Amino acid sequence: MPASTNDPNLRSFIETTPDSHFPIQNLPYGVFEHPRFHEAHIGAAIGEQILDLTILEAKGCFNQSPLKDRRLFSHPTLNTLMAAGRPIWTAARQTISELLRHDNPRLRDDADLLNEVLLPMASVKMRLPVEIGDYTDFYASKEHAVNVGAMFRGKENALMPNWLWMPIGYHGRASSVVVSGTDIRRPLGQTKPDDADTPVFGPCRLMDFELEMGFFTGPGNKHGHPIPIEKSSEYIFGMVLVNDWSARDIQKWEYQPLGPFLSKNLGTSISPWVVTLDALEPFRCAGPKQEPEPLPYLRSPGDYAYDITLEVHLRGENMDQPARICQSNFKYMYWNICQQLAHHTITGCNIRPGDMMASGTISGPTPDSYGSMLELAWRGTKPLTIAPGETRKFLQDHDMVMMSGWCLGDGYRIGFGEVRGAILPALKG
Amino acid sequence: MPASTNDPNLRSFIETTPDSHFPIQNLPYGVFEHPRFHEAHIGAAIGEQILDLTILEAKGCFNQSPLKDRRLFSHPTLNTLMAAGRPIWTAARQTISELLRHDNPRLRDDADLLNEVLLPMASVKMRLPVEIGDYTDFYASKEHAVNVGAMFRGKENALMPNWLWMPIGYHGRASSVVVSGTDIRRPLGQTKPDDADTPVFGPCRLMDFELEMGFFTGPGNKHGHPIPIEKSSEYIFGMVLVNDWSARDIQKWEYQPLGPFLSKNLGTSISPWVVTLDALEPFRCAGPKQEPEPLPYLRSPGDYAYDITLEVHLRGENMDQPARICQSNFKYMYWNICQQLAHHTITGCNIRPGDMMASGTISGPTPDSYGSMLELAWRGTKPLTIAPGETRKFLQDHDMVMMSGWCLGDGYRIGFGEVRGAILPALKG
Repeated sequence: MPASTNDPNLRSFIETTPDSHFPIQNLPYGVFEHPRFHEAHIGAAIGEQILDLTILEAKGCFNQSPLKDRRLFSHPTLNTLMAAGRPIWTAARQTISELLRHDNPRLRDDADLLNEVLLPMASVKMRLPVEIGDYTDFYASKEHAVNVGAMFRGKENALMPNWLWMPIGYHGRASSVVVSGTDIRRPLGQTKPDDADTPVFGPCRLMDFELEMGFFTGPGNKHGHPIPIEKSSEYIFGMVLVNDWSARDIQKWEYQPLGPFLSKNLGTSISPWVVTLDALEPFRCAGPKQEPEPLPYLRSPGDYAYDITLEVHLRGENMDQPARICQSNFKYMYWNICQQLAHHTITGCNIRPGDMMASGTISGPTPDSYGSMLELAWRGTKPLTIAPGETRKFLQDHDMVMMSGWCLGDGYRIGFGEVRGAILPALKG
Repeated sequence: MPASTNDPNLRSFIETTPDSHFPIQNLPYGVFEHPRFHEAHIGAAIGEQILDLTILEAKGCFNQSPLKDRRLFSHPTLNTLMAAGRPIWTAARQTISELLRHDNPRLRDDADLLNEVLLPMASVKMRLPVEIGDYTDFYASKEHAVNVGAMFRGKENALMPNWLWMPIGYHGRASSVVVSGTDIRRPLGQTKPDDADTPVFGPCRLMDFELEMGFFTGPGNKHGHPIPIEKSSEYIFGMVLVNDWSARDIQKWEYQPLGPFLSKNLGTSISPWVVTLDALEPFRCAGPKQEPEPLPYLRSPGDYAYDITLEVHLRGENMDQPARICQSNFKYMYWNICQQLAHHTITGCNIRPGDMMASGTISGPTPDSYGSMLELAWRGTKPLTIAPGETRKFLQDHDMVMMSGWCLGDGYRIGFGEVRGAILPALKG
């Protein structure tokens, strides 16, 4: 019986510090480019380095049952791996973990092979890890929904009557999901100032971020056949950090009655490393109590919140270093990922490997845990001081927004790395 | 100078009747399966037959400039063709048209080749013609928006203040777009009866269709760079019929504040033949007058409505033949396809070859032109008599809905064929 891949005592011959996001207990997957090869490769993060799984697969390191001939890593995306299902995911993780253990000489003592398959992160360019078929964005934090509802509709109507009964969500735009490091251009668009009779055209004035996390789906279901909630976690591969950039003034004018559209599809950024549910398993925890009790098709099969500390930092162009502007936690989410997936498919909607479902803004109970500028500066009424002489109501041109997240284990972290992006000035309209 | 591919006097050696949807002036593209070959092929419809373009390309029929080595038809989807852009589309159309002309002996007099590349439509299975990256649904018929708005929000608030200023739309679900002939299962879901305090779970009771058309995008734009409206038609490949199945009771309970979600992603049906903008060119016409004048980025570069007669037929399981329940026209749309595309990209959203953008329900000015049961039976208050002893407020199990559409030329039609689908009973909840 091999040691559990989650064992806190596991060590790799590649040493990692206790605050590293990528110890041997994590092993997230990503896709990277390197001048050495033409097509992008799949890698696993370990410390400050990347283990090249595409080359290892070509060399026969995944040739044992049940991984044999599956070609999980011989593609420039993770979709094939995601389609393979949990028994394969677990076997692949076990194999990679064993290859990296401090007491396994196979890779450790083969200097030539190591030189070929271990690359410094700094030497590669990370890519979007998945060809995303469909992207859905939920609205699953009660604190966020109450905050935004109160601003737009008043305290009495803050939470719509349906909110406590189902994870509200909407379809997003898959084409404009980009990987961390991609800058985002301030959009042009149509807005209507409160004091004007007719709309105006120009650069967005109320540019915002939203701190979210997203999960990627594994094997799909058949169209017309819902995924029962008790099986839903088998359809979830792993998670990333998500920055759901939002143009608030455009959103306000366009969103009724069919929901946010152009205010969201200008771009959505994700972190490059997909952390598996297997790696997150030790950090599952209870979520908020759900009152009223959900309908049976939404009753969670167990605790499916995750204790993931989340932070947002902002650096303006005149700031020497980034300032932390938000600290939240994924466990605050009212509707968990199993409930989201079960709801999404209840009318028969089919999912495919590599679909992304984001959580919606993850706001916590205290003002410093709010996951958007809209809430942090309360619609511009409470400008946020982020550094001496630097206040913000919304994002300014050249502001760099960085989100990070990690689970804190005993002496180690399971981290997500970060998702970052800066706001470029608008094009001339 | 070869004859125009749109010349009404063109004739093919494959004879077609004046009411055929697929004369030589049309030449829509589709993807089909045939027991003879393993992978799906691309074909052009001509009369009751299909010209196999995949085989013709392999035999060198598209070897002249600018088509040489492009492999437009050697795939099981139209995405490569769509990515190629208008000069290539026009050249391919010209080549196919010439191959089929009555006075061109090349194909006409080669019995062996003809036998290989000409297949009766009845002998093949049509497939989804495109790998759809993202699917967007607009809401571009003023009559429909006014009708639905009046029912849900009263006559005074029927049209939201933004509606006359922009083509309102929302992101749909690409994974559940299916080809004509796919039956649709009545969904299970959450609804809240007007007289109840809490929602209930069960089969949708208010199942509906929506008569729409959709266009497919050609070459994409760069993320962050809008497509100017004067160039937008260069990014549109062609059109299909769309049935946007809708679960009205689920929609009513879920849609605020983020728009329709599960009520729409249960399935969207499209016709299998993509009719090119080139073939539709003679039927461009003026759309409704737009008042107020749109903002400059939405000012249409010309007349971009299309005169396309549309019909919906319904056949209940006890009916001998289908009954026509709606006759509408695509030219009623307030916002045209160029305006839709320019709006969609104005905040920098990128499109990719094979994205689908649907119009929203195409309702006309008279009650018999309303494009949904919701409007035809006015929210159930005016049951529609469709045959002796057959009335409908919404769709019943086993109802077959068929939509067809065509442009009427001088002695010929440019048709879309049809999109059909029947409602299957709900699964046991």
